Formats: sequence, C-alpha cells, structure tokens
Amino acid sequence: MADVVNLAGKLALFSEHWSPRIVATLNDYEVKVVKFQGDFTWHDHADTDELFLVLHGRMTIEMRDRTVALGPGEMFVVPRGVEHCPHAVEECHALLIEPAGVVNTGDASSELTAKRGEWA
Amino acid sequence: MADVVNLAGKLALFSEHWSPRIVATLNDYEVKVVKFQGDFTWHDHADTDELFLVLHGRMTIEMRDRTVALGPGEMFVVPRGVEHCPHAVEECHALLIEPAGVVNTGDASSELTAKRGEWA
Repeated sequence: MADVVNLAGKLALFSEHWSPRIVATLNDYEVKVVKFQGDFTWHDHADTDELFLVLHGRMTIEMRDRTVALGPGEMFVVPRGVEHCPHAVEECHALLIEPAGVVNTGDASSELTAKRGEWA
Repeated sequence: MADVVNLAGKLALFSEHWSPRIVATLNDYEVKVVKFQGDFTWHDHADTDELFLVLHGRMTIEMRDRTVALGPGEMFVVPRGVEHCPHAVEECHALLIEPAGVVNTGDASSELTAKRGEWA
C-alpha cells in the first residue's frame, strides 16, 4: 500500500520546470506535482479534463477566450478539448490530476513534452 | 465553463463536519472539500480508491493494519476495499477526490451518511 505523500517533500526532489512527477495514483488517474516557470506551449487534451491546484506561487492559464489567475489554494479544471497555455512569471508549484498516460503537451508535441510516467 | 475555485473560500461557506461539498468535477470524478472533527465510522469503498489531501489541521486515517497521520500539504490514497476510519482531534479541512456518486460512509450507512451531490 502507498505511503503518505508530503507534497513539499516531493517537490524538493527535482528542479526541472514543466516536468510533472507522479506522486500517487487514484484508480486509473495520476496525481502529479510540477514546477512551472515561464511560458508553456498552447495545447489541448481532446479526451480529458485537467485539474490544476496551485500549492506555491502564482500562475495563469491562458485560454482562447479568457485567462484565469491562480494563487496558493486555488484550483481550476481545464475542460477537455479547450486549448490552454500555462504561464508563471516566478516559479510556481502545482498539483495536477489527470488520467494515467496523458501527455503534458497534449496535441502539441515539442521540446517541452515530458517523459511519460516519471515518479518523484 | 467553471471558474477558479478558492478552497478556503469554499470551506468558509459551511460549518458541518463530515459533510463533503463538491467544488469541481474532473471528467466523472468529483473534487470535494470537507471539515472533519471527532471520529468517523468504519467503512470501505469496494469499487474505488479515495484521495485525502489535508489543507488545514491534522487528521489520522485508521486502517485495520496501520494508521497514517496527515498534516497540511500531505495526502494519502485509501485503496479500494480497504476499511478505514478517519479521525481528527481538532477541526481539519481536507480535499477529497473520488468518482461521482460515492457515498461518504461507503458500505456503512449511518447518521453520518452525507447527502449526495451537494455543492459548496
């Protein structure tokens, strides 16, 4: 059985930006922590919603029709199929939850595409 | 499209213990906030894992073979079918994620069984 997950402890194990690390599974979903800084790439996930919960710092999620700003303790679910582009001026730490196997860059493979299934 | 969810703001909207409130959906999952204090009831969820993330305060999750203690920023996934009983000496606030329609008392209906599908 899995252990207690200390999110700050898991975040201390890596420094790369835009490289989510799995910290737990929930049925067929993965719970990940990630460090954001700078601008990501526009992409969407055709088959799934994606949950962002900010743990530290601030980020924005730009969509084609609006932009949302998130601080610590704030979450947002990007609906499936909605193009979005995350940004963070200063380093931001977040929790992500999405089905196992989702690729971070969605439909837009790029140098920012993370390795799949990497655990913290 | 849903809005940004401020978890502390949602928790300020109610005071009842052991009464999870939905704050967002993620595909067919529900994201809930809950206030715990005292002892819950032993139960299990035969068909699903259940994620607990503590936002404020401290709680323990007693299982038949061990007990885990969680503080702010710590999470634990109770595997499907594992009997568990949450406790909190002082009020504790947590985020729960589980498939839509899961009953908080699992197989053990009681006076603690929450209304289904109540949003904060």
